[in-house]
Amino acid sequence: MALLPLTAAHRRSVIIALATVLCVCYFMTIGHEDSYSSFKSLSTQWTVSKDSAVVLDVKQTSEIRPQSKPSPSAGNISSSVHSPPRRANATLVMLARNSDLNGVISSVEQLEARFNRKFQYPWVFLNDEPFSVDFKKRVSVLTDAEISFGLIPRDSWVQPDWIDEDRAREGRNSLVRQGVIYGGSVSYRNMCRFNSGFFFHHELLTPYKWYWRVEPDVRYYCDLDYDPFLFMEDHDKVYGFTISMPEWEPTIPSLWSTVKDFVAKHPQYVARDNSMDFISDNAGDTYNMCHFWSNFEIADMDFWRGEAYTKFFEYLEATGGFYYERWGDAPVHSIAAALFARKDQIHFFKDIGYKHAEFAHCPQGKQWREGHCSCDPNDNFDFAQNSCLRHFMRLED
Amino acid sequence: MALLPLTAAHRRSVIIALATVLCVCYFMTIGHEDSYSSFKSLSTQWTVSKDSAVVLDVKQTSEIRPQSKPSPSAGNISSSVHSPPRRANATLVMLARNSDLNGVISSVEQLEARFNRKFQYPWVFLNDEPFSVDFKKRVSVLTDAEISFGLIPRDSWVQPDWIDEDRAREGRNSLVRQGVIYGGSVSYRNMCRFNSGFFFHHELLTPYKWYWRVEPDVRYYCDLDYDPFLFMEDHDKVYGFTISMPEWEPTIPSLWSTVKDFVAKHPQYVARDNSMDFISDNAGDTYNMCHFWSNFEIADMDFWRGEAYTKFFEYLEATGGFYYERWGDAPVHSIAAALFARKDQIHFFKDIGYKHAEFAHCPQGKQWREGHCSCDPNDNFDFAQNSCLRHFMRLED
Repeated sequence: MALLPLTAAHRRSVIIALATVLCVCYFMTIGHEDSYSSFKSLSTQWTVSKDSAVVLDVKQTSEIRPQSKPSPSAGNISSSVHSPPRRANATLVMLARNSDLNGVISSVEQLEARFNRKFQYPWVFLNDEPFSVDFKKRVSVLTDAEISFGLIPRDSWVQPDWIDEDRAREGRNSLVRQGVIYGGSVSYRNMCRFNSGFFFHHELLTPYKWYWRVEPDVRYYCDLDYDPFLFMEDHDKVYGFTISMPEWEPTIPSLWSTVKDFVAKHPQYVARDNSMDFISDNAGDTYNMCHFWSNFEIADMDFWRGEAYTKFFEYLEATGGFYYERWGDAPVHSIAAALFARKDQIHFFKDIGYKHAEFAHCPQGKQWREGHCSCDPNDNFDFAQNSCLRHFMRLED
Repeated sequence: MALLPLTAAHRRSVIIALATVLCVCYFMTIGHEDSYSSFKSLSTQWTVSKDSAVVLDVKQTSEIRPQSKPSPSAGNISSSVHSPPRRANATLVMLARNSDLNGVISSVEQLEARFNRKFQYPWVFLNDEPFSVDFKKRVSVLTDAEISFGLIPRDSWVQPDWIDEDRAREGRNSLVRQGVIYGGSVSYRNMCRFNSGFFFHHELLTPYKWYWRVEPDVRYYCDLDYDPFLFMEDHDKVYGFTISMPEWEPTIPSLWSTVKDFVAKHPQYVARDNSMDFISDNAGDTYNMCHFWSNFEIADMDFWRGEAYTKFFEYLEATGGFYYERWGDAPVHSIAAALFARKDQIHFFKDIGYKHAEFAHCPQGKQWREGHCSCDPNDNFDFAQNSCLRHFMRLED
């Protein structure tokens, strides 16, 4: 694989790019409120839950394609003579705003073409405000798989009342003065916190164990001809990634000390054969900022729902660091996976061609050829100077 | 279908766009000469023909995926128990420069995902200079179908010696003074002439009857789940299109009088039930500039190879209009199809979602849904003010 040389100009670009993309939570701002009422061609059935999540159930009408409704269950219950192929209890999930429509269509179109057309895993779309009729129509048409559009409950999105807003504002202002991207944004912090501690409890996701996180405007370059969820299940994996890189330190000044405090109090959660060497160059004394880039994740929500991560998130949450600083879900997920899972439970999906912003993972050699990959094999962040993949690779030594 | 309102600003944009895209021949400039010799991972076999066309035959090696080699024959000769599905004698064809690589990959990736993955029609790429090793590697990987890379023979590309260069230069300068896009370009004229009269005689295309013309950087928005070549064959079609629009008159001032001269001399070639009403609003007195936008074509090369079109092209060619003016292959093909084929032999592929530059055809209603189309149904040129589709539709009256 190619080592990308880093000139001063490159380095500057990388720093600017990191500033743009680190804390990989997807930035959501206040969008437009859209009316559902004017769209006549969908027969809709709303389920408004107690936490205000809204589920659109697209029904078959003369105006809409039949929606296949595969069961999210991994069981093989079939009424036909032939058993259906084994499936994982998994979903594709994307957070998006109505204004992201074109980027959402682009990502869904690619992932359907390269993977999901063959596997028909359901899609779940989440938004902090209701999806527009046009959004649902334009996205639903792209897949024959089950598709749901949900509203994020307010109490898992907005800054909690117990946060000291004066201190939070000072934290934001400090990051703005340091020029940190999204340093002044509350909605970005909402998103990071939601992705860290709440998405897997959303009522549209609780039926599922596995998820593949998708974002608007990403690239999927290669055919994926096997089921990555079953691969995870069959190999006792917990967390899968494609790209890793360092976090920007000013966004998480107190995160590592908080992690160390938690671990000191709850040593029983740390896996014996963990990945400390991925996240620390000195056996845990300091955090080296390495994290898996969480805009791509194929992972086990039961890991996030389990005791170790639940206690961990509660501990982080109680410090207010998601708002007083600007903790990203990428370092939070990554540190947890590195400490509470065995290192062999973390999987590098090197056969999945992926690009977000300007960072790409392009499969190499046989995998590039067999995947009919459209990426340039030389456009590959794997062993670029700022990549953390070598930290992951050294775990195998 | 939506009528797109045309404001003055819109109209200006459309005029500018038309100036950019009319004469839909693909603009080829002198690119870089690339060496074939350094690329070690392909085992290549060169066939240099008498007309200098170069064919790359990608062989199966440990470094390259097996290339399926479906016979271009429409016959159903099979050595297995099950007959293979019926196929047309057809190919996908694209003219491209090495510098178009990213746009080529984008077009091929989409057409493979939306159509050719299921049908495995061969690809033919043509260039006026040798394709680079990198180009062939990056494009070959995208398909399991047969793929060939050919060089355009010089004598079907460059301006012929018998053209009066002084007069040709004056013609170019005149168009430049009028601000006509590519008005001063000789290579653009080469391309228009090649697409008008030569591509179907290229040795890589002579084995085939049907072709689908593809260009770099176009969009294919929808699944195509049937074989459009077999559709053409079974319904006695000759020419298929998705978008139609008017040509820019300064590029073809003498084309229509030349056509009328030809028809007066060879009335026997004009079909009884022709499409004169598509290209003329006054029964042939003047040309209304309407043409099928030939960057998309699914058509019958035997029609171009037949007596009527052969004589027609020779007649046009003899006037030097491809160089003294700037005749495009779109009006040339369109006028020929309109006059020498029956109107029921021209097919509007309304189920193929397509976009080139800023002009899109997006299928509507059931076809949009069943095609899982990613286009906006409202982004549809069909009945925009400058579209000629209504001229085509009136043929049915």
